[in-house]
Amino acid sequence: MEDKRIDFQNVKNEVRVFAPATVANMICGFDILGFAVDFPGDEVKMYRVEEPGVRIRSIEGDEGRLPLDADRNTVSACVKMLLEALGIQEQIGVEIELIKHMPIGSGLGSSSASTVAGLFAINNLLGDPLTKEELMPFCVEGERLACGHGHADNVAPALMGGITLIRGYNPLDVIKLPVPTELYAGIVFPKVDVPTRDARQLIKEKVLLKDAVTQWGNIAGLIAGLYDSDYDLIGRSMHDVLIEPTRAILIPEFYEMKQLALEEGALSFGISGSGPSVVAIARGKDIAEKAATRIQQHLTACDIESFKYVSAVNVDGPKVI
Amino acid sequence: MEDKRIDFQNVKNEVRVFAPATVANMICGFDILGFAVDFPGDEVKMYRVEEPGVRIRSIEGDEGRLPLDADRNTVSACVKMLLEALGIQEQIGVEIELIKHMPIGSGLGSSSASTVAGLFAINNLLGDPLTKEELMPFCVEGERLACGHGHADNVAPALMGGITLIRGYNPLDVIKLPVPTELYAGIVFPKVDVPTRDARQLIKEKVLLKDAVTQWGNIAGLIAGLYDSDYDLIGRSMHDVLIEPTRAILIPEFYEMKQLALEEGALSFGISGSGPSVVAIARGKDIAEKAATRIQQHLTACDIESFKYVSAVNVDGPKVI
Repeated sequence: MEDKRIDFQNVKNEVRVFAPATVANMICGFDILGFAVDFPGDEVKMYRVEEPGVRIRSIEGDEGRLPLDADRNTVSACVKMLLEALGIQEQIGVEIELIKHMPIGSGLGSSSASTVAGLFAINNLLGDPLTKEELMPFCVEGERLACGHGHADNVAPALMGGITLIRGYNPLDVIKLPVPTELYAGIVFPKVDVPTRDARQLIKEKVLLKDAVTQWGNIAGLIAGLYDSDYDLIGRSMHDVLIEPTRAILIPEFYEMKQLALEEGALSFGISGSGPSVVAIARGKDIAEKAATRIQQHLTACDIESFKYVSAVNVDGPKVI
Repeated sequence: MEDKRIDFQNVKNEVRVFAPATVANMICGFDILGFAVDFPGDEVKMYRVEEPGVRIRSIEGDEGRLPLDADRNTVSACVKMLLEALGIQEQIGVEIELIKHMPIGSGLGSSSASTVAGLFAINNLLGDPLTKEELMPFCVEGERLACGHGHADNVAPALMGGITLIRGYNPLDVIKLPVPTELYAGIVFPKVDVPTRDARQLIKEKVLLKDAVTQWGNIAGLIAGLYDSDYDLIGRSMHDVLIEPTRAILIPEFYEMKQLALEEGALSFGISGSGPSVVAIARGKDIAEKAATRIQQHLTACDIESFKYVSAVNVDGPKVI
């Protein structure tokens, strides 16, 4: 990174960035697939200041759960890491306002959206010295700081936009997949607590090979369906026989919500990331909207508060606003 | 099938069909992927006769290992099954000459090529009443008769041609994948005995989820690589971390052959089906040829007899010759 020259004359005084929420796993592709949505997402306002270093000015929308300490906050820690990699940590100072538009622990890549917003913002402030591909390892490192593991299935779509495949980690190999234009997500976040760590611990270390074969047949079918814009094939393929059966236990009314989504004509229904958010995948906004509405009505009848988001796949990723 | 009308006036007197050998698994896609090659393959000559029923006239190239008894021979048994499904078993008689151009138990889909040749031949003789899609279940049933399990990863590419994905079995869902034009296979069959059943029994029933994730990341990468004709991605993706480590034990000089193939510039190298045939996947005929030649030279130096086949992906499948 030392070869990246920063033209300090052209460093901006401030920038405001939005980075999107993401649906990791994409129902059948545990740990390898994910896609970005238009909304919700997180916002970072970044200001250049005289005094070198990285500081957090304020955080909104986190219900007081995130640290303001710049060393402990993931966003500032990542920004610092990037400045150090560029060798300019002594030459520049920034202050950050983080505005969260989505709940923490929702299974919608909340920490990834903040991390990506922060890193995209500092890169933009500096005049875009790094490509998105070069920013990716910093985003993965941010995910490690936030969650204790360097998974990329949220940060990759949050940064690259669209639908991404993590082919492998040694080295990190992110592939952008085609996005069928009529693909919509109807997302519902039931306001119950499912910490990512617990959701991970439920999963068995070993699986039956025959179930793994079923799973990778479906993954392969989904990839083919995305390339061919074959919505039927996408629907036939989006089944998770390995992870959903255990994780669904943590999500109230999961199978009832699934039935409602499919009744409304959704192509598929499953858990977003490690939950508790659920997602109905649909052809067209109308069906996604109907499915999400029906699910939310059901949760309301069960006295479970929820949030609803309906979105196409966001093909752009983070943006300066 | 009872709705298929056969016009007995137009039934041919004889037909000669070639069906191709196939490389199942395609290195990383255990039980779901496979592709057809131009050569080797099996031939069926079929003659209409007066007396109803299905009989085997002769078998060449099997070293006397296949039964001439029409009820025990897979080819004739499948042809009979099809005539019964059409409800015309009392109205037509055929005799079959089977000419095998490839060794039995080679891992190149020998039984599938014969089955597909037989079923394609009877369908053609009858005036093509069934589509390839309609023939597929009979081919899978033939595989069950021949091997004791109804896998489709050899019969699907043998019948459909090209590269096929078996997305799932309930119901059978075969997807034709795109074929990058420069994709070649350099196949070497070391003449050692590896019965399919033994090769299957070696495989563990349970696998680590983290290895399964690596495997399906690679499978997804391979599908994307095929759609994008991205040879680098194809090469990066064609690794088998689950099956190869155990099956390679049965194949003499496996890792030496792998090293030679990669030295010659092959994109990937692995086991064809359950072996002992091995396959170097290459961009261009030249590299495939060099890799296969180098492997064969090595086997010769080790006093292991072998056969070598170099071929593009056969996109047509069976054909009348």
